[in-house]
Amino acid sequence: MTGTSSERAPVRVAVLGCGHVGRALVELLTEPARAEEITLRSGVAFEVVGIAVRDLARQRSEAPWFPHRVLTDDAKGLVERDDVDVVVELIGGLDPARDLVEAALRAGRPVVTANKVLLAAAGRELGELAEANGVDLLYEASVAGAIPVIRPLRESLAGERIVRVMGIVNGTTNFILSRMAHGGESYDEALAEAQRLGLAEADPTADVEGYDAAAKAAILASLAFGADVTVDDVHREGITAVTHSDVRYAAQLGYVIKPLAVAERLGHGSSISVRVHPAVVPSDHPLASVGGAFNAVFIEGERAGEMMLYGRGAGGNAAASAVLGDLIVAARHLR
Amino acid sequence: MTGTSSERAPVRVAVLGCGHVGRALVELLTEPARAEEITLRSGVAFEVVGIAVRDLARQRSEAPWFPHRVLTDDAKGLVERDDVDVVVELIGGLDPARDLVEAALRAGRPVVTANKVLLAAAGRELGELAEANGVDLLYEASVAGAIPVIRPLRESLAGERIVRVMGIVNGTTNFILSRMAHGGESYDEALAEAQRLGLAEADPTADVEGYDAAAKAAILASLAFGADVTVDDVHREGITAVTHSDVRYAAQLGYVIKPLAVAERLGHGSSISVRVHPAVVPSDHPLASVGGAFNAVFIEGERAGEMMLYGRGAGGNAAASAVLGDLIVAARHLR
Repeated sequence: MTGTSSERAPVRVAVLGCGHVGRALVELLTEPARAEEITLRSGVAFEVVGIAVRDLARQRSEAPWFPHRVLTDDAKGLVERDDVDVVVELIGGLDPARDLVEAALRAGRPVVTANKVLLAAAGRELGELAEANGVDLLYEASVAGAIPVIRPLRESLAGERIVRVMGIVNGTTNFILSRMAHGGESYDEALAEAQRLGLAEADPTADVEGYDAAAKAAILASLAFGADVTVDDVHREGITAVTHSDVRYAAQLGYVIKPLAVAERLGHGSSISVRVHPAVVPSDHPLASVGGAFNAVFIEGERAGEMMLYGRGAGGNAAASAVLGDLIVAARHLR
Repeated sequence: MTGTSSERAPVRVAVLGCGHVGRALVELLTEPARAEEITLRSGVAFEVVGIAVRDLARQRSEAPWFPHRVLTDDAKGLVERDDVDVVVELIGGLDPARDLVEAALRAGRPVVTANKVLLAAAGRELGELAEANGVDLLYEASVAGAIPVIRPLRESLAGERIVRVMGIVNGTTNFILSRMAHGGESYDEALAEAQRLGLAEADPTADVEGYDAAAKAAILASLAFGADVTVDDVHREGITAVTHSDVRYAAQLGYVIKPLAVAERLGHGSSISVRVHPAVVPSDHPLASVGGAFNAVFIEGERAGEMMLYGRGAGGNAAASAVLGDLIVAARHLR
């Protein structure tokens, strides 16, 4: 690690998981020119002191500066090591991610995570554990990639009474419905095209049945309404039943069909509705022009009015950028 | 003040200036039901302990809970009072705002401000003074009203190499050019309509000649590129020379004319260009559909890709919402 432009000791980072996002993050933090630029921009220097992986034998990166020497298969040991300042969890899923995040928080280490499944299941408990231990739990990368959504909801709009949040938070289904609308393709053709482009998995269930969007909807609803919403509270309907004639008929009436995650207050009371489903949106609504694999979150506040946060929702680089922003905030708080 | 749901003592706020935004903020903080809701949402209770105004005799609000008893014409004395935890500067302009903000920071008080003129002239110096005194200087409301722009640039994108920022940051000129495009009005007719709706001042110079946008461009450029950009560095061109035939001709070619603030890196070097001018934007660009008095900031990052933050840029309530978000962040940091 460099760090010549910072007078302070580097912040020591443990990275759990080294898939697409983990590798992109470690490369950002260790490639000398990039690391130097991050330090210049942010005033913080980082040192990657450990990377936990399942299979030590697997090649992670061909970059000559990649710190292969700090790879370990002892994630639990890494999280509790004395020379770790911040833990980044990029394993995904509940097990063993939840145990590791809890161990890190209990050890007084701030945690940055991109794990939507974990947050949608146990966000409330983890947030309380972080608060009890006086450390940050940051998760900007869990919803809508590099688009700042979590921090605006948690901080900029902390005093705002939010009425409704509507998000296009799954790029795969947005791509498929956009192709059906503009390219005249059938659902099966559009799905095959998404798979060919690497936008959909071989088994597309998590995307097309709305599981991915439901986890993100739970996170957004919890933040927007200060409520304890888990993925089990989210009404979920996939896009597999949308036909080409639905799309064409909507267009004739001046609408587009979009894969929405919606969280809204009902009436004047305190009850809320959280759901994921294909929805007709008027063509002149800002969400209507969010095409392809882009994501957007549309927020209606009582005093702030309508706003929309829009950008690329997916990709290892975008997620790594969001994780890095959180890492910098956590590092600044450590001072 | 209420605050029953918080176990902690309320955070004591001094408000400098009681125009549209100041009054909206004080009403938010003191109307019992709203104050209670803010405390519930944010975990912070506030008490307005002083409001500095020029003319004590003037009626500020008809609300029965409005704390007229804390009005004072001694702003300097208020800023340095021992019972003030946070100072909110909503006077605007350089003098006396700059002296007061400096005095507050020197006294170790965090400052929240919406003052674009002050930040565009002396943002760097004030930021250094805040850092030297270990306190926050927050200014989300200075650009694009309630849309979260400052915090995303400063925190979420802290590690991102930003290539270009393009903003529609002046609602008045966007309204005028939108009317010329859609309503077929001349510049003079559209301006008169904006004045009738309260979107333009009787003397519209600050808006139509680009001074307002230039201040915001300086703030955005400073944050995006970590550079010391003041309003004097911004190339500025107003919209007064745009004719109806320019607008019509652009439309025929598939473009719209938008009032842009642009900050971008030039070539691969470290030099940057910051400018404000009417610009042709392709009709399918996300900025093209930002109509009426709406604002938007479009950001291109090297790894995060393209993103856009969109919403209402003006109005006392929107600005007060942004100030309140900053107040809550400052209060949380005080703990």
